[in-house]
Amino acid sequence: MAALAVTPIGHLETPWSTPGDCPRNGRQPDPAPECRAVVVPAFRDGLLGLEGFSHLILLYWMHRAPTPALRFTPPFDREERGIFATRAPFRPNPVALSVVRFHGFAAPGVLRVTNLDCASGTPLLDIKPYLPTTDAEPEASLGWLAPHATPRVKGSAG
Amino acid sequence: MAALAVTPIGHLETPWSTPGDCPRNGRQPDPAPECRAVVVPAFRDGLLGLEGFSHLILLYWMHRAPTPALRFTPPFDREERGIFATRAPFRPNPVALSVVRFHGFAAPGVLRVTNLDCASGTPLLDIKPYLPTTDAEPEASLGWLAPHATPRVKGSAG
Repeated sequence: MAALAVTPIGHLETPWSTPGDCPRNGRQPDPAPECRAVVVPAFRDGLLGLEGFSHLILLYWMHRAPTPALRFTPPFDREERGIFATRAPFRPNPVALSVVRFHGFAAPGVLRVTNLDCASGTPLLDIKPYLPTTDAEPEASLGWLAPHATPRVKGSAG
Repeated sequence: MAALAVTPIGHLETPWSTPGDCPRNGRQPDPAPECRAVVVPAFRDGLLGLEGFSHLILLYWMHRAPTPALRFTPPFDREERGIFATRAPFRPNPVALSVVRFHGFAAPGVLRVTNLDCASGTPLLDIKPYLPTTDAEPEASLGWLAPHATPRVKGSAG
């Protein structure tokens, strides 16, 4: 199949300068540091009406991910797993998603968010409103990750 | 910023042949029809360990979306909204995500899923395990969409 092209609409600013500095997931740091999603001027018209959503889904390009691998052994596990059974960055298409809490705009096109876990400078591809009616499955089972689940930071949903 | 390339890892099979036939979201049809996510052989090694997750996140390319628009007036609303405050397909990067229920494999590389809402033949970009610890925000507020929320089909989380 032919390749398809995506174009960054901006970038993410976080406290972590390299992938090695990043937390395991965006809900691990307590308190969660404030991050920024910066949308370039050409795409800012698309942000109208974003106020009022408490949570957003950010899609971003893991530009510093290693070469893709279809199988690997996670550092906290002993069995080989398929990449699609993990959230590891070195995927065939290195597009990540984070469900973040949205705290409003710091300036035009500059979103204040928490619960990101990527390196600063990561290219941003899309912003979507988080819809609990279709996106929240709090009872979902964790498969092989169940014994390795990170505890949810208290109050991170609030 | 330079364009980045994504490559389909397979495609989605649904009962809907055109975007116009599709439900408003994947939790609207009751009962939800079974759909298929078909991964091409070259990427099937990445599926190891997917069993045991009750829900997955599928990223796919809305290949039949109209030309992107940064603002539009949704059909069920009267106010103009920014594309990033909606889940409409005609986005700068037409990458959609659906949280689907995973019912196991119909054949090697062929996943049985429910709660998709896209046209059949849609290119599949990624499969991720759904992690309630980071992805579920059942109390998230719906912003301008609150008065238009589709009722959740009973038991769809189960």
